[in-house]
Amino acid sequence: MSAPAQFPDRLAAAVERKGASLCVGLDPMVERLPAELRGVEPAEAYERFCRGIVDAVAETAVAVKLQSAFFEALGSTGVAVFERVAAHARDAGLLVVADVKRGDIPSTAEAYAAAFLDPRGGEPPLADVMTVSTYMGGDSLEPFLRACREHGAGIFCLLKTSNPGSGDVQDLPLADGRPLWHHVAGLVEEWGAGLVGESGLSAVGAVVGATHSGVVETARRLLPHAVLLLLGVGAQGAQPADVAPAFAEHPAGGLVSVSRPILYAHEERGGDWRGAAAAEAARFAGELRAAAVVG
Amino acid sequence: MSAPAQFPDRLAAAVERKGASLCVGLDPMVERLPAELRGVEPAEAYERFCRGIVDAVAETAVAVKLQSAFFEALGSTGVAVFERVAAHARDAGLLVVADVKRGDIPSTAEAYAAAFLDPRGGEPPLADVMTVSTYMGGDSLEPFLRACREHGAGIFCLLKTSNPGSGDVQDLPLADGRPLWHHVAGLVEEWGAGLVGESGLSAVGAVVGATHSGVVETARRLLPHAVLLLLGVGAQGAQPADVAPAFAEHPAGGLVSVSRPILYAHEERGGDWRGAAAAEAARFAGELRAAAVVG
Repeated sequence: MSAPAQFPDRLAAAVERKGASLCVGLDPMVERLPAELRGVEPAEAYERFCRGIVDAVAETAVAVKLQSAFFEALGSTGVAVFERVAAHARDAGLLVVADVKRGDIPSTAEAYAAAFLDPRGGEPPLADVMTVSTYMGGDSLEPFLRACREHGAGIFCLLKTSNPGSGDVQDLPLADGRPLWHHVAGLVEEWGAGLVGESGLSAVGAVVGATHSGVVETARRLLPHAVLLLLGVGAQGAQPADVAPAFAEHPAGGLVSVSRPILYAHEERGGDWRGAAAAEAARFAGELRAAAVVG
Repeated sequence: MSAPAQFPDRLAAAVERKGASLCVGLDPMVERLPAELRGVEPAEAYERFCRGIVDAVAETAVAVKLQSAFFEALGSTGVAVFERVAAHARDAGLLVVADVKRGDIPSTAEAYAAAFLDPRGGEPPLADVMTVSTYMGGDSLEPFLRACREHGAGIFCLLKTSNPGSGDVQDLPLADGRPLWHHVAGLVEEWGAGLVGESGLSAVGAVVGATHSGVVETARRLLPHAVLLLLGVGAQGAQPADVAPAFAEHPAGGLVSVSRPILYAHEERGGDWRGAAAAEAARFAGELRAAAVVG
């Protein structure tokens, strides 16, 4: 039996088919749900909302990114919704990004890899790719790399995040003069070296905030084989043009995640929330296509 | 209404009552369950096992630490077990440490704080204290600090972890010559400055691996107000004597988590697994008491 196609190759095929590397972030928030879902029990409302968004963007986006925190805030019932929404997205032909930012000592990280990247019983893995922490070092990543090798999974390693406070640690100047995140980029490239697919892209990608000037370009240079999960476009102020450098070498060299402007497009656009989300996703995809061509 | 007692003060009171700052780590693993739980459906087996361990150590330990990864590996059903075991431990008079190592941008971290540290509906918070990531910087911690202020919660910030690979990032020499984790220690002390309780200890603690020579002593010096969550005693090779420096200033200055040697004591000791765990917990508590006095 051959292993399943590697994550970056599945992503590259999806981008080729759909024309833009757009990921829709599922960040359900009780207080921003459409009117028809207000007053519905929150877990039920999140499920109907996320399923509706998945269906609305399935033609346009290549992936959805489920932000675990918002589901976990509803307890185990919310985690069950996470599982069902992930399965629904997979059935709709979308790649599933579990945005969970997990990481731990190796024997514990093995359990996180089992939770998100390994097949479960007779079921496929919960996600195609998950976000992981890097602070604990190389051995803490090994179980995730094992899942990439065995099951064609992928990981996005925290590198330079989109929040203003990211500089507190990630930008610290090292003895050799470089900011910390440049060094971490070298580690990420190293971890991913044995996991480069036919696309030329590695199963080991990196989380990069598009909110910081020049960061996407530098990350592209330091990480020639990584898919960059680009965050901060939309609610945090970055523009599609800011992510263009990610696509300099490959149309799937970046995966641009947009959450709130698409999810809550009905607040601005009015009309049916599904239609508003579909229209806004199409608008972002068009801008990304233009940006990637320029890049 | 006054806020509930701060986490470090609750810990200090528990240590005074029980005589040793022992935390039992709940790391359930299918392949190491006692014979009577083999063949039982895993979530059911984990629940019976963890409840049995809680009851066995409730007189001796001050806290239990639930390692989320092992529960998440069973999916949302496992997360529901996590919730029930945490409630059972609280009812048994134990402090609850959620070992989840969460962290994200501020608006998302707010959802993680809601998941673990805020009261949920009419229920008390899931945990007294949770482990959190530090790589994303100060603003990513703010929602957790808010929960500490409002609900008397606590956090343990990842500082210098117990795994061999921790040095890959945490030991990197900064431009000023110090290893990265020394700088992070300064940030942790700063984040916790406004949250020092009557005990003199802060709600903002730090995760420190006792497996590295000299690290506990240095962490104690750099973080005079932090409770140090000390990991690596037992399965990872550190000895109770290695954690003594944590207790130099205060008998609750450290919280020593021991998992597998207590959970799986029946493998060595034989007999009933609950009795074996109780006896091994008592033995560790005795050694810690001696070490803390020496310290």
